[in-house]
Amino acid sequence: MSAQSSLAGSPVVAEVDFAAKGRQAGHLRVPQSRDDSGWGTIPVPIVVVANGSGPTMLLTAGNHGDEYEGQVALLDLARTLKPEQVQGRVIIIPAMHYPACAAGKRLSPLDGRDFNRCFPGDPFGGFALSLAHYIDSVLLPLCDYQQDLHSGGTGMDIVASTAGHVLDDAGLQAKTLAMADAFNAPVTMLLREVNAGPTLLAQAEARGVVALSSELGGGGRLNPANLAITRRGVANLLRHAGILDGKPEITTPSRRMTVPDLAHYVFAPCDGIWEAADILGSSVEAGAPAGLLHRIEDPTGPAIPLSYAATGLLWCVRHAGRVKVGDPVAVIARDL
Amino acid sequence: MSAQSSLAGSPVVAEVDFAAKGRQAGHLRVPQSRDDSGWGTIPVPIVVVANGSGPTMLLTAGNHGDEYEGQVALLDLARTLKPEQVQGRVIIIPAMHYPACAAGKRLSPLDGRDFNRCFPGDPFGGFALSLAHYIDSVLLPLCDYQQDLHSGGTGMDIVASTAGHVLDDAGLQAKTLAMADAFNAPVTMLLREVNAGPTLLAQAEARGVVALSSELGGGGRLNPANLAITRRGVANLLRHAGILDGKPEITTPSRRMTVPDLAHYVFAPCDGIWEAADILGSSVEAGAPAGLLHRIEDPTGPAIPLSYAATGLLWCVRHAGRVKVGDPVAVIARDL
Amino acid sequence: MSAQSSLAGSPVVAEVDFAAKGRQAGHLRVPQSRDDSGWGTIPVPIVVVANGSGPTMLLTAGNHGDEYEGQVALLDLARTLKPEQVQGRVIIIPAMHYPACAAGKRLSPLDGRDFNRCFPGDPFGGFALSLAHYIDSVLLPLCDYQQDLHSGGTGMDIVASTAGHVLDDAGLQAKTLAMADAFNAPVTMLLREVNAGPTLLAQAEARGVVALSSELGGGGRLNPANLAITRRGVANLLRHAGILDGKPEITTPSRRMTVPDLAHYVFAPCDGIWEAADILGSSVEAGAPAGLLHRIEDPTGPAIPLSYAATGLLWCVRHAGRVKVGDPVAVIARDL
Amino acid sequence: MSAQSSLAGSPVVAEVDFAAKGRQAGHLRVPQSRDDSGWGTIPVPIVVVANGSGPTMLLTAGNHGDEYEGQVALLDLARTLKPEQVQGRVIIIPAMHYPACAAGKRLSPLDGRDFNRCFPGDPFGGFALSLAHYIDSVLLPLCDYQQDLHSGGTGMDIVASTAGHVLDDAGLQAKTLAMADAFNAPVTMLLREVNAGPTLLAQAEARGVVALSSELGGGGRLNPANLAITRRGVANLLRHAGILDGKPEITTPSRRMTVPDLAHYVFAPCDGIWEAADILGSSVEAGAPAGLLHRIEDPTGPAIPLSYAATGLLWCVRHAGRVKVGDPVAVIARDL
Amino acid sequence: MSAQSSLAGSPVVAEVDFAAKGRQAGHLRVPQSRDDSGWGTIPVPIVVVANGSGPTMLLTAGNHGDEYEGQVALLDLARTLKPEQVQGRVIIIPAMHYPACAAGKRLSPLDGRDFNRCFPGDPFGGFALSLAHYIDSVLLPLCDYQQDLHSGGTGMDIVASTAGHVLDDAGLQAKTLAMADAFNAPVTMLLREVNAGPTLLAQAEARGVVALSSELGGGGRLNPANLAITRRGVANLLRHAGILDGKPEITTPSRRMTVPDLAHYVFAPCDGIWEAADILGSSVEAGAPAGLLHRIEDPTGPAIPLSYAATGLLWCVRHAGRVKVGDPVAVIARDL
Amino acid sequence: MSAQSSLAGSPVVAEVDFAAKGRQAGHLRVPQSRDDSGWGTIPVPIVVVANGSGPTMLLTAGNHGDEYEGQVALLDLARTLKPEQVQGRVIIIPAMHYPACAAGKRLSPLDGRDFNRCFPGDPFGGFALSLAHYIDSVLLPLCDYQQDLHSGGTGMDIVASTAGHVLDDAGLQAKTLAMADAFNAPVTMLLREVNAGPTLLAQAEARGVVALSSELGGGGRLNPANLAITRRGVANLLRHAGILDGKPEITTPSRRMTVPDLAHYVFAPCDGIWEAADILGSSVEAGAPAGLLHRIEDPTGPAIPLSYAATGLLWCVRHAGRVKVGDPVAVIARDL
Repeated sequence: MSAQSSLAGSPVVAEVDFAAKGRQAGHLRVPQSRDDSGWGTIPVPIVVVANGSGPTMLLTAGNHGDEYEGQVALLDLARTLKPEQVQGRVIIIPAMHYPACAAGKRLSPLDGRDFNRCFPGDPFGGFALSLAHYIDSVLLPLCDYQQDLHSGGTGMDIVASTAGHVLDDAGLQAKTLAMADAFNAPVTMLLREVNAGPTLLAQAEARGVVALSSELGGGGRLNPANLAITRRGVANLLRHAGILDGKPEITTPSRRMTVPDLAHYVFAPCDGIWEAADILGSSVEAGAPAGLLHRIEDPTGPAIPLSYAATGLLWCVRHAGRVKVGDPVAVIARDL
Repeated sequence: MSAQSSLAGSPVVAEVDFAAKGRQAGHLRVPQSRDDSGWGTIPVPIVVVANGSGPTMLLTAGNHGDEYEGQVALLDLARTLKPEQVQGRVIIIPAMHYPACAAGKRLSPLDGRDFNRCFPGDPFGGFALSLAHYIDSVLLPLCDYQQDLHSGGTGMDIVASTAGHVLDDAGLQAKTLAMADAFNAPVTMLLREVNAGPTLLAQAEARGVVALSSELGGGGRLNPANLAITRRGVANLLRHAGILDGKPEITTPSRRMTVPDLAHYVFAPCDGIWEAADILGSSVEAGAPAGLLHRIEDPTGPAIPLSYAATGLLWCVRHAGRVKVGDPVAVIARDL
Repeated sequence: MSAQSSLAGSPVVAEVDFAAKGRQAGHLRVPQSRDDSGWGTIPVPIVVVANGSGPTMLLTAGNHGDEYEGQVALLDLARTLKPEQVQGRVIIIPAMHYPACAAGKRLSPLDGRDFNRCFPGDPFGGFALSLAHYIDSVLLPLCDYQQDLHSGGTGMDIVASTAGHVLDDAGLQAKTLAMADAFNAPVTMLLREVNAGPTLLAQAEARGVVALSSELGGGGRLNPANLAITRRGVANLLRHAGILDGKPEITTPSRRMTVPDLAHYVFAPCDGIWEAADILGSSVEAGAPAGLLHRIEDPTGPAIPLSYAATGLLWCVRHAGRVKVGDPVAVIARDL
Repeated sequence: MSAQSSLAGSPVVAEVDFAAKGRQAGHLRVPQSRDDSGWGTIPVPIVVVANGSGPTMLLTAGNHGDEYEGQVALLDLARTLKPEQVQGRVIIIPAMHYPACAAGKRLSPLDGRDFNRCFPGDPFGGFALSLAHYIDSVLLPLCDYQQDLHSGGTGMDIVASTAGHVLDDAGLQAKTLAMADAFNAPVTMLLREVNAGPTLLAQAEARGVVALSSELGGGGRLNPANLAITRRGVANLLRHAGILDGKPEITTPSRRMTVPDLAHYVFAPCDGIWEAADILGSSVEAGAPAGLLHRIEDPTGPAIPLSYAATGLLWCVRHAGRVKVGDPVAVIARDL
Repeated sequence: MSAQSSLAGSPVVAEVDFAAKGRQAGHLRVPQSRDDSGWGTIPVPIVVVANGSGPTMLLTAGNHGDEYEGQVALLDLARTLKPEQVQGRVIIIPAMHYPACAAGKRLSPLDGRDFNRCFPGDPFGGFALSLAHYIDSVLLPLCDYQQDLHSGGTGMDIVASTAGHVLDDAGLQAKTLAMADAFNAPVTMLLREVNAGPTLLAQAEARGVVALSSELGGGGRLNPANLAITRRGVANLLRHAGILDGKPEITTPSRRMTVPDLAHYVFAPCDGIWEAADILGSSVEAGAPAGLLHRIEDPTGPAIPLSYAATGLLWCVRHAGRVKVGDPVAVIARDL
Repeated sequence: MSAQSSLAGSPVVAEVDFAAKGRQAGHLRVPQSRDDSGWGTIPVPIVVVANGSGPTMLLTAGNHGDEYEGQVALLDLARTLKPEQVQGRVIIIPAMHYPACAAGKRLSPLDGRDFNRCFPGDPFGGFALSLAHYIDSVLLPLCDYQQDLHSGGTGMDIVASTAGHVLDDAGLQAKTLAMADAFNAPVTMLLREVNAGPTLLAQAEARGVVALSSELGGGGRLNPANLAITRRGVANLLRHAGILDGKPEITTPSRRMTVPDLAHYVFAPCDGIWEAADILGSSVEAGAPAGLLHRIEDPTGPAIPLSYAATGLLWCVRHAGRVKVGDPVAVIARDL
């Protein structure tokens, strides 16, 4: 345990030595006091593979616990990546918001927190804020690249995409787009930085790391096609950065798109069961029917028809049949 | 409100008159005391359409709240069925276990009960038991046929099927199979009656009603193809019973199958993320790989391979990516 | 503690000796296992005052924890009643469903149970069922009279009334009416026995005890006028039974009324804020406006008008401003 | 949806255009992530009526969900106010802390927060903090006047009052008093600004808005007399500001009072049932009995007498019968 | 999985064949439906070792999840017992109420049930009742002997004891005492059968099985001395029954004692912190001080002194410092 | 109530006057809004004894609610300390985090907060933060000395110790060590200040108060030997400060120790039941067995052996038998 390192300001302790070469597996040990274990910790698995010289890439999944493609792709990578394959350093955290991952839930069963709204964190603010603070203040400064692997979760199904922000820094923007091109998801989603919220992606950008988020499926399940895209995308990123040998495998170039405003969302005006008119990935037109909202409280009244207010790709659809007022049931993307 | 009828032994009151002709929409008013409403009730919507002479069919959905094909098909029927189309009587309850339906959950948010383990009920045992008692003691005695529309729910995805029991009464068995043939789902699943548990189906059989359950999809979503099967199946049943004019629309005859024992299940031996080897509806072989169980607590250990122990149709698969120890991840059916 | 008595079949132990003369105060000790106290008990205060010869009356309050007139009237009686005033025996339980009383809630904070749906109980079914079983099997057989003191609780406000059932046994019926006349609440409410449910009143009647329930106010508060009615009513009952000297103090004779059917209820058809058209105790007409239901989700749509469907006394009104679908907002009584 | 406006720093989006003339109804769409809806929102209804030139008044109710007079008065106003009646702009939010209003609770069912301790908010701190941040940073800067309509809630009953702070800024103080005079509630309560806490009122004052809070009844119910005061008060404010034509309707001038210190409170020294000696609005004397606290755990011990420690108007009384240690059971106001 | 056996009436399936010889390890698979896994099961580990001819003994621990000596002793036995050592059959369930054991709690985290109040169970009544039904209806009929290994749990510390009932059947009584003598715990506690409640022990007795319960320590911890007593006691039982070779190892003969009535308990009259006057196993006198109850709400009032009301062995003491009203803080045993 | 004092910035009000001489008992009245009591408060008992001239010492216990030696020692002191014994001022808060103390839990039942991670607090951040803010901003500035009395709580048992930090300020360090010597616990634990977290101790040090924490036993119980150490230690501190007459009673000098790094901890690598190899206070060697972790899910697999990674005193052991992954099961201290 001599590899354990503690950093001023954080109570999180790593069982791996980020400066060492070779392959290490251990945990980030995050304090979590319980009534029956005042000094309890939650160990978050981490794998570091380092060799020779080259950049550092932080690969994370399980930011939300019910998004599975990234978790499985990184578990595979953690099992198989060998130091001799690597030039540089790969830090892999396959199940980052560990209590949410163990529960298969988006939000933490400890306190209901959304980990991706916890940055830059607080060292003594509880598990999620404490871990976010460690990742921001200890890990991100070590990194050249960061990829945070999301999917749509239990509620939404999304066309497999990487996701980045429109950035003021043209240089960082170009590197981000090159990274997204290398990942080669079907869609590259670019969103305005404004109102990004306190996410890991925004924090990585603020620290000058070339960084992407992603949406690689959803519906609360592990989709085999999206898992394949994710595995290849991760390998492509490592090749793109020069950490692995070889060139990224590119199939069809990724389609660069955006969701410009709230008019590209369809929201449920009341609770009900959503019957979509179109399947994920369809081309849809403003004014066309988006689907019907069926209300169980009124079986003799009509179902409520909703329409699209924008034209484009049906990029995201409601997966779960039951919706609550205010839930998005469709999100449309347009080409940049 | 003169149509309200109360029956000795049950505190549930119906706002419809089951003896009247024509089309009525109202509620079953089930007492549910709250801290801030001692005499509160939960009104469960019910629609009755009766005309001329003919049999009575009880159509129910929302036995589990996260199973949507049946709910939407019955909401459609409740909106559109006209007395003049009918010979006999159709009683429609589209969202039976109403609190679970309103929450989009399998189990009740009131007390965690599984409504399909509540029969024959208890008039003062709380919402679910009280409603089950009313359905058993008041509605089933009115019925010749009963179809309870289930899907696989949030956790499982299932090949669209009707489901019945192997019965000792050959006459009732023959009528049940004829009813299933008329519904014409891709699969007719026949299970041993032993250990059926206190379900609505078992209770209907015990009262001599020709009755079926079903599994019409799953994954926590409304699947358009399965919704079409369900809508057609419900219309076919009404035609089969002579309540609607015409003959059932039959496409490919339904495949009669069974799940004979626990060897046809694959259970998760520990918590993990399930990566299935095959898609729903595949033909699979005993001994072949069923998939991999990925363990987030041990990113450097191998994923756990599971195999099938029986040969047949992959009738049911785990939808949700995260599984807990003891969860079935696959169920295999064989032809009868 | 030699006065402790245990009876076969019940784990409840009384610290008072029901056969002894004089004044005793102690507890009914009801087992309630907790994670940190496997053999924990909940002590329910009980006071017994006995002297000479005469009948036994069981006085109970706190069947529902948020009904206060009876609790305070019985606490006063328990503090002040002296053996030398008594001929016979008075058993006083001022806060019967103790966990609910301590919380000021209708239902138990332990398990959500409504104590007045727990009879005849179950000795090992948990606190409420175990206590109900003890009251039914041990206390009721000791009694000639039983008065259970209710009010309307947090949700409802009710014209101060005693309440009994229409009984098949004419002799018991006559004694019940005489007891209600002696209590002399403004209203005597008589309800059909059918569907009474598993209440203390129904159980007392089944054991041949002359018994009444009551509704002595409500709104979740202690109403001084109703407290005065309750104090006088309790003293009147003891005089009526000959346990206390003197005659009942009668002011205006009690008005005998009933609520014949569901048409005498007005139910909320959806959630909202209830603005009543009339105050408690008004005379209202079928067809007249009962009030407006204001919907916060739709501030530009109209408030929903509701009407009475029966003519009579506005016997019960919704107190709490916020109502849920299915809540009664008004109950009308008519004279017998 | 072209009227939607988003402001840097807040994820809340308005469906109304605050710069437009005429009558608009829409929502403030506040993000609220759920396990089954990562991008879910809670839409808070808002109505804007603008015409000609004149000041802007923000009218809010439902800061606490169990205070009804304000909610109903603003729903009425939102339904009926026409642009042609207005000179200036009226922004109406009838059910501000929407989840609490829908539950009829003071505190949020989402996280237990008291909305009136959430200012100036935090854009990504969860529903309540996010909405508070939007109201403070987007709406208050648009306003000349702000009235936040409170009542006493489930626990307390209060003499109908507007409430303001003693302010250092004499000009703002004078305008505040004039506004309170125009509202013309029976009492105008003036409290020291010190320790006001992070309320909407304090935040409005900090931004230089002429602002009032209020206490317009309570007991968890909608009191018709207080609703009439509130409706008239709101109309009076609009007339006072010149937004509506005409003069405020003044009956008896409002009595200016204060609660100077903790000696004007009576606190429960232990749990019990509160029997008050006086009714709301009485004149009471220091040293006189305030009431009795009845203890259910000790039916033979005496009730605990409490006394007033100050002389004045019994401005606020405990409504709910059950009190916990530390609850105020009476608050006395004295004339300024 | 051909060893799986299902029995009419129970949905529980065993993965072991109770009729087979040799050593088998598997699970009792008990259905437990979840919102995200309708057909989920909880597998309860079970080990069966059978050889030659001889009696059957069922050894169980984890009836309450926070009692550890029995769980560890049976885990050891399950790891080490070889068929060739055995004449007869040993059925070992080391962690019977599995969800409570996994949580380290007395009561179930699923529904708060005390497993030892669940007999004879209900096949479809939920996990605990379903498992109890299986144990009663399937396992007990296979058995000649049954030992259920308890300790005092989180709240109580108890002198290591076996525990049985005073039985009407003299033959069964003699065999029970012989079994207890063989176990050779320091104390043999004999309690009246009356009011035993629906425990596993009472159910085993009802089926004519020679059966014991036990109390082998407590305080929520694993006590090494008590673990040694338990390991030796279990081996002694197997020798006593002739299943293992050899004679029971007897040290000091076990002291036969009883707790005759409630006067042998000291109960807390209010909440507080318990400071005991004596340590576990002391000889105490009626009238002597039992300890002090410290009340945090009143730091200047005196601590409350409690006294013993009986003379004997201080057999059980409150472990946890904080007590609630009604908790036993001491139990005294006297010699038979 | 004229002694009540309020300080700008805090809503907490003290019923005692810290500037007055003599003995006062009252409360810190901390606002805690409930749904049924908007202006509710939680009164935290406080006792102040002041006389003549001399330093001020703040004595606190119940920072964690399940740590009892300090609570009882301070309740005793609060009952018995007389002004005439004192030169200076003693402020005693025996049950500081009052809701946790009343529940006997480490963390707050209100919001799960650990009070010792709440400093320097937030006046309107809820009960714990509000009280922490008051203690920091109002009480600590009055103090020369502060002793916060902890034990190990429900989960851990610890050799009785005072605990302080290694401080940069040599003068403060010397005074701290002298204070610890005077307390004369068996061990004085000195820990690095780095990562101390937002504790009361760290906050007291930041304000220049001579301050100590402590660990005076544990296991969720009141240990008589540790209570004696605590009572004597508290009296010693008052003598050391010159507040009480006399010299500290010193037995064996306290052993100064530290826990230098994570290698001195043994953590559970998975859930299980912990069987320790050594008892608290043993001398242990690096590499020696620390104990066995028994896994109930795998009764035929081996128990997991854990070893110490450091040599020293077994200063802290897991008390509770059930452990979760990441829990410390042993902490080793070495001499300074």
